[in-house]
Amino acid sequence: MEEQLRVGVVGGTGSEGRGLAARLALTGLRVTIGSRDPARAVSVARELGERLPAASIGGVSNENAIAASNVVILAVPFVHAGPMVEAHLELFMPGALVIDVTVPVVFDAGKPRFVEPPEGSAAEHLRSRLPDRVALACAFKTLPARLLEHVETPLDCDDFVCGDSLESRDRVSAIVRRIPGLRPVDAGPLESARVVERMTLLAISINKRYKRHGARFQVLGL
Amino acid sequence: MEEQLRVGVVGGTGSEGRGLAARLALTGLRVTIGSRDPARAVSVARELGERLPAASIGGVSNENAIAASNVVILAVPFVHAGPMVEAHLELFMPGALVIDVTVPVVFDAGKPRFVEPPEGSAAEHLRSRLPDRVALACAFKTLPARLLEHVETPLDCDDFVCGDSLESRDRVSAIVRRIPGLRPVDAGPLESARVVERMTLLAISINKRYKRHGARFQVLGL
Repeated sequence: MEEQLRVGVVGGTGSEGRGLAARLALTGLRVTIGSRDPARAVSVARELGERLPAASIGGVSNENAIAASNVVILAVPFVHAGPMVEAHLELFMPGALVIDVTVPVVFDAGKPRFVEPPEGSAAEHLRSRLPDRVALACAFKTLPARLLEHVETPLDCDDFVCGDSLESRDRVSAIVRRIPGLRPVDAGPLESARVVERMTLLAISINKRYKRHGARFQVLGL
Repeated sequence: MEEQLRVGVVGGTGSEGRGLAARLALTGLRVTIGSRDPARAVSVARELGERLPAASIGGVSNENAIAASNVVILAVPFVHAGPMVEAHLELFMPGALVIDVTVPVVFDAGKPRFVEPPEGSAAEHLRSRLPDRVALACAFKTLPARLLEHVETPLDCDDFVCGDSLESRDRVSAIVRRIPGLRPVDAGPLESARVVERMTLLAISINKRYKRHGARFQVLGL
């Protein structure tokens, strides 16, 4: 099955998108970066390809990234994720796995603040907008973007995975597990994103307080 | 300063209270367990004292535990913590540090559920009820009660500390740091309890899913 995974990273030219695209491509997956501006996607993909000759990364429009991928990573800012999904409902492949990595945080004068979506979390917000024929899982939410981009540095932490079914969680966990030093932890249903997304806020605030960039979590006792 | 700390554990006969009392007494602190039933407090204190000859632990009523302590740990279930505080406002010492360890979780047919207090977190709920002359900090919220009681087992994890001032956080961090294998992590103002309390729910659900009892957190990258 695995060799058939085609990963599209929507909004893949940002820091988190580039980091995820690079780390996943280095595990041997075919990865396509999507952007509103396809030329920008091509340019970022080429840059990554030059830096990482072992990685196979292409660049296309967000529309093409959605339509051509059976694993679609939503790496746009949270405020754009809902509208992006709603504008492209018909493009998602039947059976595609959508991976939500967004966090509903805004910065007021540099201070991060959690903005609770009416559904309780970004993940539930997106589930209510996605068509039934796709599965939705969350992963990579608490990982520091800046660390993700340093592909030479192992992540050495846990990744909290939640999803709309056990099968969705298993599918995303198998993808998480490919990345060296990253262990998926099954955090349960999408509702658990209410905790996980707030943990990102906590990590951001710890980074600020301790003047660090890589605060991240590990679960002991498993 | 440290030798003058007198720690009272209100509701100290439950699993978490006993574990905290024992672990703190083993660091050389004078600890008093409080209970609605003073005879029960005396009996639990005696049991702990027999098991741990190095620990100095007394047992009294909750009222006496509050009145005689400059560090008051609220280890009653969350639903009782607010009423308990309101019923005993006049007993708290000026300058006392109150440590909230409660989590607003209820179990519906065995399934844990976070019940958000109107103030956003248990910590903020209690701050709005406590007199100005006491300081409030949170600690020990995410530690598994069953592990706390096994005082022979090092905790080897982090403890998320938040408080109503930097001074409150420093005071509680100094107490946390006494316990071997436990590192305080400054999680910021009381509002951060909104994350930390939900992390307890996550740890409980991970324990259930993985059939464990000791899921707990560590922050990497600090």
